Amino acid sequence: MEADREGLHRPTDPQSFPLREADSSASCPTSERLDFPVAVVLPAGGSGERTGLATPKQFCTFLGRPLISYTIQAFERVTWVKNIVIVVANESLDLMKNIIQKHGHKKVKVVLGGPTRHRSIFNGLRVFMESQDDSQLTKPKVVVIHDAVRPFMEEEFLLKIANAAKEHGAAGAIRPLVSTVIATTSEGYLDHSLERTKYRASEMPQAFLFDTIYQAYQQCTEYDFEFGTECLHLVLQYCGTNAKLVEGPPTLWKVTYIRDLFAAESIIKENLSQRACVITGVHQEAVHLTHCLQKTLAQSMQVDTVSTWHGSDGSSPSTVLENYNLIYISVNSSSFHEINKLVETIGNTALPVLYPVVLIMMHLSLSECMSFSKTWDELSAIKKLAKEVKERNILVYGLLLNYTKDAEKWNDAVENASVIALSLIKDRNAALTGQMFVV
Amino acid sequence: MEADREGLHRPTDPQSFPLREADSSASCPTSERLDFPVAVVLPAGGSGERTGLATPKQFCTFLGRPLISYTIQAFERVTWVKNIVIVVANESLDLMKNIIQKHGHKKVKVVLGGPTRHRSIFNGLRVFMESQDDSQLTKPKVVVIHDAVRPFMEEEFLLKIANAAKEHGAAGAIRPLVSTVIATTSEGYLDHSLERTKYRASEMPQAFLFDTIYQAYQQCTEYDFEFGTECLHLVLQYCGTNAKLVEGPPTLWKVTYIRDLFAAESIIKENLSQRACVITGVHQEAVHLTHCLQKTLAQSMQVDTVSTWHGSDGSSPSTVLENYNLIYISVNSSSFHEINKLVETIGNTALPVLYPVVLIMMHLSLSECMSFSKTWDELSAIKKLAKEVKERNILVYGLLLNYTKDAEKWNDAVENASVIALSLIKDRNAALTGQMFVV
Repeated sequence: MEADREGLHRPTDPQSFPLREADSSASCPTSERLDFPVAVVLPAGGSGERTGLATPKQFCTFLGRPLISYTIQAFERVTWVKNIVIVVANESLDLMKNIIQKHGHKKVKVVLGGPTRHRSIFNGLRVFMESQDDSQLTKPKVVVIHDAVRPFMEEEFLLKIANAAKEHGAAGAIRPLVSTVIATTSEGYLDHSLERTKYRASEMPQAFLFDTIYQAYQQCTEYDFEFGTECLHLVLQYCGTNAKLVEGPPTLWKVTYIRDLFAAESIIKENLSQRACVITGVHQEAVHLTHCLQKTLAQSMQVDTVSTWHGSDGSSPSTVLENYNLIYISVNSSSFHEINKLVETIGNTALPVLYPVVLIMMHLSLSECMSFSKTWDELSAIKKLAKEVKERNILVYGLLLNYTKDAEKWNDAVENASVIALSLIKDRNAALTGQMFVV
Repeated sequence: MEADREGLHRPTDPQSFPLREADSSASCPTSERLDFPVAVVLPAGGSGERTGLATPKQFCTFLGRPLISYTIQAFERVTWVKNIVIVVANESLDLMKNIIQKHGHKKVKVVLGGPTRHRSIFNGLRVFMESQDDSQLTKPKVVVIHDAVRPFMEEEFLLKIANAAKEHGAAGAIRPLVSTVIATTSEGYLDHSLERTKYRASEMPQAFLFDTIYQAYQQCTEYDFEFGTECLHLVLQYCGTNAKLVEGPPTLWKVTYIRDLFAAESIIKENLSQRACVITGVHQEAVHLTHCLQKTLAQSMQVDTVSTWHGSDGSSPSTVLENYNLIYISVNSSSFHEINKLVETIGNTALPVLYPVVLIMMHLSLSECMSFSKTWDELSAIKKLAKEVKERNILVYGLLLNYTKDAEKWNDAVENASVIALSLIKDRNAALTGQMFVV
């Protein structure tokens, strides 16, 4: 999509993707606007037949992390969501516990599911009734039910759904129909097509007054448990509650086919590439390079600059500590001692627990003619460092460019360096770490 | 999706993606099975509001080619499709003509559209009635109507639809509903949900006896032209023709949102990465390297090998001439004369007109210690070549590895070289051409 990306500062889908770590209150501007306890139940027992993959799709990984962890994170960063109950099949229990530990999820409780989706949801609800001695769990006023395979849930929309549930007893996300829906005859011919404007696709999340949905499940028949598809329908049938329908953003889409896995991965990568921080050092030429880089990169992302990544007291500015993309400029020779300390600092943040961090070591050579042996030493050092830190989810690349006073050559070099840096940031390709790219 | 791709020889979605050039009869095993003329009408006047992009989505490019060209190609490679009529808005006319010329489409006629989809389709149909003096156009028995933004149409399915249209007068692709469809009250509450098994999503392609759909359009009201959505509905209403519905593969999906553009790009890349050809040369060590590479790459793709890319008569084997991924092994020093000739040969095939061709120059150094200056010369030569041929849609990368008799080190080196080569093939990243990757 090269032609289109150029003109695109950020993808319109999703419009606001959560990049911050869990529990960051800065990402929760709406936290003051809900004054009742909310919990989430995430049924995650599906087998993912439609993707054609051996792994159920909620456990498929992008950038080293399973899909379900992205979904959990989307709720975890919302301060007013108190508990997230994940309902899994017995065979996924250990896997799920590992995911929670590895990616630092904190609000989560794992529960065993039943043989159908409705039984699993009911199991998830029941823990709130049976948990008097579990101080971690609060019986919520409103419970949100979501799919583990819809990772791009936005807080603003969740707020709407939760408030609508409190007011109306039940609320559900809807979207316009993408295709015309038709009724078929039993012989496989067109019977009639539905008038599109009167119908909507029912999506997730849905939210309910806890007591209402719990009561509906208590009254459910075996048939409902086996074959029912809509919780909204159950509360209508057993509690007389008409769900309020709220139109959601396209980002609520459900990962169903392999193409959706590709799409989710691309969206996550695109969203991680919205900003970068250049650490310039004090060399005059490095500062000049940074200004030039900023101009070319600014077409694609926001670029902050700092002269050093740590103050005299050892602390680092937030633009470094909260950035998934760092460009470290060195002149003539790199200080690997400095870089090791920087990597150590990044490794101690919560960043790489969630997403790979890209660190581009941009090496500016001032001599018009590069030294072979020095370049080679530099490459070996980068390779070694990159290998060590890859396991900590930090991706290190080298990028070498030559300083020249020839303005045309210099502009070309900066343009090329920007294109390569942008590509490394957007691709986050673990196979190419430790390589030295030469402009 | 690293964990999942590993176990995946080819994506299940789509199962058979057209990789061959247009008009290649080898890709059309069903050509004998249709004995009546078939034409296609592709309305392509949409504005693509839902992607949020300035460019209508049919003109968004992946890997240097607009979406609509992929869709055209999907029909063009089907030998029994005689004509493809593209209906475009006036403002896209020049763009469309450029696309056709640049990507060598041959069966295509461009027609101006009307203000609505139905008027555009009718304009497309009319050219067959008004074209007595246009020897290029044959009035078809069956006409297929498709969307420009559904690029993954498979021949086998098209055959089913065309045959069903001949037999029943009309036929349309359907898919199971992904979401539950609900009826809403005028106040925005749930009214009822539809029983999923009785309804289907109506997709494309659809096909009709030409005379039937033409007659239906002649009788259409202004209201139909303005607000109608389904051609199937028109032939039912005006000709009493009940369309036969045929369940299609998931690959028929319509590119609607930005995420679909990402998905389409990934699927195309994945499908281009199913096979590679290694050109070994005659060196014993190169042949050994090839065997080792084959073993590691075979987990991800089919790997053919040839000792030379041209015979003594100058002709090349088809495994070279039809392959989008070439790995050329040289020992100690590369023969850029040879490589220039190879690139020239690739450039003369139809391959790069459709997709970027990846050429990895894998350089095997036999001395235990690499020479700095030689490597540097090699890098400069590759950069120069890569820059020259990038515009011809051939992506050249260098990959350097050191021969060693230490078995463990050698296995590591081959493993690393495979991972890098595979990544270069899968990503087809134009920003990184001319780089020398070092194992």
